[in-house]
Amino acid sequence: MSDLPKRISIKEEGPREGFQFEKGVIPAARKIALIDSLSQTGLKQIQTVSFVPAKNVPGMADADEVVQGFRRAPGVSYTALWLNERGLERAIDSGKLDIKGILTLTASEKFLLRNQKRNLAENLAALPGLIAMYKKHEVPVERVSIAAAFGCNFEGDIPVATVVDMSRQLVEMGRDYGLDVKVLSLADTMAWATPQSIRRVVGAVREAFPELQISLHLHDTRGMGVANAYAGLEMGVAMFDAAVGGLGGCPFAAHSGAAGNVCTEDLIFMCDEMGIESGVDLEALLETARLAEDIVGHPLPGAVKSGGSLRRLRQKIAGEPVVA
Amino acid sequence: MSDLPKRISIKEEGPREGFQFEKGVIPAARKIALIDSLSQTGLKQIQTVSFVPAKNVPGMADADEVVQGFRRAPGVSYTALWLNERGLERAIDSGKLDIKGILTLTASEKFLLRNQKRNLAENLAALPGLIAMYKKHEVPVERVSIAAAFGCNFEGDIPVATVVDMSRQLVEMGRDYGLDVKVLSLADTMAWATPQSIRRVVGAVREAFPELQISLHLHDTRGMGVANAYAGLEMGVAMFDAAVGGLGGCPFAAHSGAAGNVCTEDLIFMCDEMGIESGVDLEALLETARLAEDIVGHPLPGAVKSGGSLRRLRQKIAGEPVVA
Repeated sequence: MSDLPKRISIKEEGPREGFQFEKGVIPAARKIALIDSLSQTGLKQIQTVSFVPAKNVPGMADADEVVQGFRRAPGVSYTALWLNERGLERAIDSGKLDIKGILTLTASEKFLLRNQKRNLAENLAALPGLIAMYKKHEVPVERVSIAAAFGCNFEGDIPVATVVDMSRQLVEMGRDYGLDVKVLSLADTMAWATPQSIRRVVGAVREAFPELQISLHLHDTRGMGVANAYAGLEMGVAMFDAAVGGLGGCPFAAHSGAAGNVCTEDLIFMCDEMGIESGVDLEALLETARLAEDIVGHPLPGAVKSGGSLRRLRQKIAGEPVVA
Repeated sequence: MSDLPKRISIKEEGPREGFQFEKGVIPAARKIALIDSLSQTGLKQIQTVSFVPAKNVPGMADADEVVQGFRRAPGVSYTALWLNERGLERAIDSGKLDIKGILTLTASEKFLLRNQKRNLAENLAALPGLIAMYKKHEVPVERVSIAAAFGCNFEGDIPVATVVDMSRQLVEMGRDYGLDVKVLSLADTMAWATPQSIRRVVGAVREAFPELQISLHLHDTRGMGVANAYAGLEMGVAMFDAAVGGLGGCPFAAHSGAAGNVCTEDLIFMCDEMGIESGVDLEALLETARLAEDIVGHPLPGAVKSGGSLRRLRQKIAGEPVVA
């Protein structure tokens, strides 16, 4: 029937996604409260901030303060995003983050030109410099990723062959430079994916690179997030980025509507109900989702935080005490 | 890989679902406007109202006026719901509806006791009376259905065997009374289904009754609507109930949060992108979804009405005139 994994791991992107995307000012203390609340849910990887210039992303002006403020919980990996050496150095200097390198190519040249003023060849040619930077700072690089892998608001549909070719470029680059690349992340940056294209692209990449773990970064702009995650699960994908409450969106992707990542708690709910372990306590995560909603001050798209878990209902029906 | 159908048919439930569920008063003229707008999208079946006592469902007090008001479009089947002979007679007397009988059993005895003050045996024993009523009024019965087929807020999980047994009771009842039963509708009345339980239940029922078409009625209370529909498509299901904008919810099901049916336009978007025909013009339906949102006066959960279709983006990217 399918290759449903027994266990998945989630990289929680809510803080970074949300704080870069929300228009209103969110005090650092509340950002810290969200990260600390996420730390208590069983999530093992939390992406906290972006170290990017405040003039580009005003919501990240307090990134250093946020990182200094949260309490590291045991067993949780706290990460950040950066776009250049200055950002990486800020992340390293914080002394509180798990510094992990990533090599990214973008499948859409038009998006790349618009977002980074580079063409595809220039994007590829920039990677050795990035690798040198990581080596200089002794940062491990286990993950490569492809942005806009399922389609692009500026370029349109992306051929599967493009994604496979770029994956090969990344894998070869990793091999040539002696990196230990383990994970290939495919990002549906602009919410073009459907379950069918997830199956098609993941299938092609899995066949070409059976040694790599595949991770999916999904946006829910067109309501396909959970269905796409399910299609990924069916293809054996066991690593997902997700955002509590469905926070977020790329500020440069010309999104309209709800632009966030697939909602963490809705994804965990689905996995819980299908017997796929995540290590996350759904009830705790639902509380955190309600906190996220309170922090941003408007409804977030996640459904289970309103609809409620079935575990609670089952306990109530069985006459058991309802345990959080 | 899967049994994805080439074509699906949608029963649009938005008017009935929405007008029974919304708390505010919606003028009949606006209900009529929604039905007329839906009629122009390519949808071929629209459930318009419930003929139920106004004291039970105040939003349906104007059902007769609404039915008199809409303009029948060629090729569209307009249906209604009723719970007794008085309701059926009102539907027949309207002279404007396509009167189709349905036999329903509820998989959850606790829900049935609460909702209809009947146990399972009494529910089954009531069917011959219902069939007699349909025969008296010369109403064809081609559809049988099972409510709460995937779980119940009052009873909990529903065994697959219960659904198969009830399906058999319905099929045998149909045969014994000379009905031409063609469709078995499985309703996830209280949003307990996951893609896995959809596959499990649909698989069991499909194997037991290969001669029947299976239809799914899905609620999106826990964000699983589109993923569940996809799982249904993978199992060859080609008939779905859906509600424009994600309108609705059963007023007696103790829902919280967004309680509506799977959102029609999000489902159509997914099918369009996967090459599954529905006969529905997505752009027209998105306009209707925005009208539905305007009518109810609050945001509805559907995503594509905000996120936009990809067809429009592809036209823009190709430099073609953007056609509605």
